Amino acid sequence: MKIDGKPFRSIWLDADGRNVSVIDQTVLPHRFAIAAIRSRDDAARAIKSMLVRGAPLIGATAAYGIALAMRDDASDRALAEAYDLLLATRPTAVNLRWALDDMKNVLAPLAPSARVEAAYRRAGAICDDDVALNSAIGDHGLGLIRAARSKAGKRERINVLTHCNAGWLATVDWGTALAPIYKAHDLGMPIHVWVDETRPRNQGASLTAWELGRHGVPHTVIVDNAGGHLMQHGEVDLCIVGTDRTTRRGDVCNKIGTYLKALAAHDNGVPFYVALPSPTIDWTMEDGVREIPIEERDQAEVTVLAGKDAQGAIAKVQVTPDGSRAANFGFDVTPARLVSALITERGVCPATREGMAGLFPEFSRG
Amino acid sequence: MKIDGKPFRSIWLDADGRNVSVIDQTVLPHRFAIAAIRSRDDAARAIKSMLVRGAPLIGATAAYGIALAMRDDASDRALAEAYDLLLATRPTAVNLRWALDDMKNVLAPLAPSARVEAAYRRAGAICDDDVALNSAIGDHGLGLIRAARSKAGKRERINVLTHCNAGWLATVDWGTALAPIYKAHDLGMPIHVWVDETRPRNQGASLTAWELGRHGVPHTVIVDNAGGHLMQHGEVDLCIVGTDRTTRRGDVCNKIGTYLKALAAHDNGVPFYVALPSPTIDWTMEDGVREIPIEERDQAEVTVLAGKDAQGAIAKVQVTPDGSRAANFGFDVTPARLVSALITERGVCPATREGMAGLFPEFSRG
Repeated sequence: MKIDGKPFRSIWLDADGRNVSVIDQTVLPHRFAIAAIRSRDDAARAIKSMLVRGAPLIGATAAYGIALAMRDDASDRALAEAYDLLLATRPTAVNLRWALDDMKNVLAPLAPSARVEAAYRRAGAICDDDVALNSAIGDHGLGLIRAARSKAGKRERINVLTHCNAGWLATVDWGTALAPIYKAHDLGMPIHVWVDETRPRNQGASLTAWELGRHGVPHTVIVDNAGGHLMQHGEVDLCIVGTDRTTRRGDVCNKIGTYLKALAAHDNGVPFYVALPSPTIDWTMEDGVREIPIEERDQAEVTVLAGKDAQGAIAKVQVTPDGSRAANFGFDVTPARLVSALITERGVCPATREGMAGLFPEFSRG
Repeated sequence: MKIDGKPFRSIWLDADGRNVSVIDQTVLPHRFAIAAIRSRDDAARAIKSMLVRGAPLIGATAAYGIALAMRDDASDRALAEAYDLLLATRPTAVNLRWALDDMKNVLAPLAPSARVEAAYRRAGAICDDDVALNSAIGDHGLGLIRAARSKAGKRERINVLTHCNAGWLATVDWGTALAPIYKAHDLGMPIHVWVDETRPRNQGASLTAWELGRHGVPHTVIVDNAGGHLMQHGEVDLCIVGTDRTTRRGDVCNKIGTYLKALAAHDNGVPFYVALPSPTIDWTMEDGVREIPIEERDQAEVTVLAGKDAQGAIAKVQVTPDGSRAANFGFDVTPARLVSALITERGVCPATREGMAGLFPEFSRG
């Protein structure tokens, strides 16, 4: 998408065809900085320090990390070492392992002399495939925005609520939940986004607000407490959120607090859509609330907040009393009964086993 | 309640019988400071600058403000001036007007020479009445905690979730929503409180966590997004929240986000109780969502956060990008259908017109 008029991806190959650049997401939204990835170790550091985040972008960065490693040393041993080093950066990231396996499967059978070119080509293809997948989600989701608009008979702005950041910064481009919003905006539809700040890590207030603002999409940041009130008063036409993992019957594991917004949407007759890249479907799981383990993270993410201080520097402040402990659950599960539909790269389907099996018959047998 | 073993109220008459002291709530939870109120103007400043907050405490402070004014000048004119000055500090605070009217009604008929003693006596009575009212809410709510515990057949800790600060810091003592919790704790029941941080002003993370911690009540701060997840997993036995205004059929206007917790409680079969001092019932209103106007506050409360910096000083940081606007709704309305029961100073009743009329027949005729 665009940053103040200029098109960007979240990761790209430099003009030299060798080095890679990424947007440093640790200093957003207060500073826009581009970081150079010049080696395997740079790529590993970028993932580990969360310079890049979001499952698809992590996978793409790791893929280029393999390409950079091959440029320095295309031996079997160097390939194995790069694989292990990059995998260890975020061991639980599913896309990371998938991208590394893909690169290894392509490169291992080749002679070392052929690996460098093949690695760059494959890493580029991984990026392009992600862009195409998200663009397809955007096109399918756009139909739902159009439908909500014509249903409401609205001529004025259409209001979408989103939670966390499922935008282009989390992917290579377009994003998942935000892809339909960018498509609508780029077509000139009068779309406005309510951005949940998304405590504790504030990905909404920082990343979603930043990327919408830079692309020129009208938006308003709200605290996570506000969405129910807005829905009660007709100020939300539809919700679109992303997902980290979805079970075969359509239970959605996403950033903590998603479930509360789905309850409010259901209580007020507001459509609640989940943008779902098919690689995040877990076909082995049925009941998300019972089966998906929820990561507990460092309590300091709750007790200490980062922002820009009066001097413009990035600073941290503690909001809780000394001695009060905090709990920090990363995700929650929204039961399928609260999800109006799933937006996949193959189309829109009900959040049911049958709905998903209809779009993805190859995964859902047995 | 107690601060590290020593009993406190949020406002008290000093040993000299003339000056008044309050806890400076603007520097909590990072500093515990007592502020002296030595004059009518000190009282007005304390209310206006939010050194004191919470409807009952504002009323009590204003009452003592009248007493301090009388000490300096007990004339009719001084009484009228003090009334106007104090009323202007927070013009929309219902308790403020009520306390000032009460003081004026008591003092105006008296000879100026009798007013000083009568004013201090009446201000003291306003404080004592608030303490008694909250203690009664605590006793009635304690029965609900006991019931939740025996229903769950629990021997281990009982978990209560609360939102915002309806504790002793918002009243003269005990609090409303927290009164039953203090009663249970003081009886040795193993009670633990999930404290919603309550964005945007963080009254939970700062004030509720602080007062529970100082009194020794086990508690854990969570982001406002987390309560639904906890309820899905059986980690909340009951919810108790306060209210700013309640309609005659039991719709509850309370801090923004309360509605989302009520929805989650309903979805998971968790009792959701509202501690309701009868002065906050608005007998003129029926449908809270349609009739109660919701205050929109300064967007800086959303975009800028205060806390303790690395040097221990109170500092502010901006969490949103420059140029992104924010919306800041102070309250939301929880429909009566989501409220399991109301806890009043006269007992517990269903959140229905009939339930409230049964406890308060004198208000509900016609």
